[in-house]
Amino acid sequence: MKRIRLIVAYDGTNYCGWQKQQNGVTVEEMLNRAILDLTGEEAEVIGASRTDAGVHAWGNVAVFDTEFRMPPEKYVYALNHRLPEDIRVQYSDEVPPDWHPRKQVSVKTYEYRILNRRMEIPTERLYTHFCYYDLDIDKMREAASFLIGEHDFRSFCSVKTQAQSTVRAIYALEVWEDGDLVTIHIEGGGFLYNMVRIIAGTLLKVGTGAWPPEHVKEILDAKDRELAGETLPAKGLTLVGIEYEE
Amino acid sequence: MKRIRLIVAYDGTNYCGWQKQQNGVTVEEMLNRAILDLTGEEAEVIGASRTDAGVHAWGNVAVFDTEFRMPPEKYVYALNHRLPEDIRVQYSDEVPPDWHPRKQVSVKTYEYRILNRRMEIPTERLYTHFCYYDLDIDKMREAASFLIGEHDFRSFCSVKTQAQSTVRAIYALEVWEDGDLVTIHIEGGGFLYNMVRIIAGTLLKVGTGAWPPEHVKEILDAKDRELAGETLPAKGLTLVGIEYEE
Repeated sequence: MKRIRLIVAYDGTNYCGWQKQQNGVTVEEMLNRAILDLTGEEAEVIGASRTDAGVHAWGNVAVFDTEFRMPPEKYVYALNHRLPEDIRVQYSDEVPPDWHPRKQVSVKTYEYRILNRRMEIPTERLYTHFCYYDLDIDKMREAASFLIGEHDFRSFCSVKTQAQSTVRAIYALEVWEDGDLVTIHIEGGGFLYNMVRIIAGTLLKVGTGAWPPEHVKEILDAKDRELAGETLPAKGLTLVGIEYEE
Repeated sequence: MKRIRLIVAYDGTNYCGWQKQQNGVTVEEMLNRAILDLTGEEAEVIGASRTDAGVHAWGNVAVFDTEFRMPPEKYVYALNHRLPEDIRVQYSDEVPPDWHPRKQVSVKTYEYRILNRRMEIPTERLYTHFCYYDLDIDKMREAASFLIGEHDFRSFCSVKTQAQSTVRAIYALEVWEDGDLVTIHIEGGGFLYNMVRIIAGTLLKVGTGAWPPEHVKEILDAKDRELAGETLPAKGLTLVGIEYEE
């Protein structure tokens, strides 16, 4: 028995997220099907990040166990051949049998993209959130600075969370501007449910001038989801990658 | 009667190109329907560039005539409200009744995007052509230099062309690199059928090392479509914009 690790990129547009659901097809399910087709074995991939419906990924991580005899690096090609074009394995290797993608220390990087211009651009619509109002990037950066470090992020977490603790650590939170594309780049040890999308919604409020940057500190301290900005749409969010301590 | 000019952006993925066809829906048709819905008049938009099936645009130009009483700049919002989200009017104004988008002197800018990396990225698949082999950008630039200026581009033109003359002028032909994204940026007074996609296919051959840069000069001189590179897929091509002499 070998444990194979996959780095997986996908366009979340047509999926009900990563994890198996009653209705609608998921990324996990497509991977399980491809593995079954390749190996003849019923597989159960375990994903590092169970991304929501519509969220994209360039580097989610998954593992599965198999008796199939194939060099670990060959799974990339063998699985891509059996996957739809909106899912592409980027890399494959073997890991120890007890290596679990959610139980290792890791740094996850997400990016939230906002298209900031007067009119929507159809070729950007699936991967950005559109904002008509001019964003003040410096103010967004100032607001972001209050969130870096270890804090109780209860205000930035869906009330649906099942997390025991809402304390998390953000290692980096940067706001990049490239023409009319604004990218919120965030790195952390782990994120609460909807946390990145709520942080993006809150920084957007600051960017449009609705809230002063310091207000984000007050929101953080209040530990009240009602006070933070809205959960921005899934399509603007991409799981860029996950780095594991070896 | 007023002649209204529109600047139109679209994602070409789901369209059989710009112009009315027997089978399959076109961008032109969607615009005509939106105008009918707004004005109650049967419209016949005239487009500047009759882009092929699957080609994208950020700034195609179209005109239509109407008796409808609405300030010209308001058509942007009124039509977008009636268009699917993969077509978005960017700008509207009034032009003289004899202003024709294909009969004015203009500079058209196209970009062809190539994703140059080891693995495909699903979120880029609809807007780039994937190339696994490492591209030598300097060689592509050297090859491009032979095509700038006025030449007979018969070698870079689909044999299906109905053009009387195959002489065209390229004002700029640049190759940009941004991470793993290679963009072929081209500006000219007008292009032959499939010309940009054939130039891109030819520069790709040079980039992969299959042909030396100087070979592009030989291809140009031979005036033979058989010698140039392949017509790259439509999805990598975007009509960036059209500038008119006023």
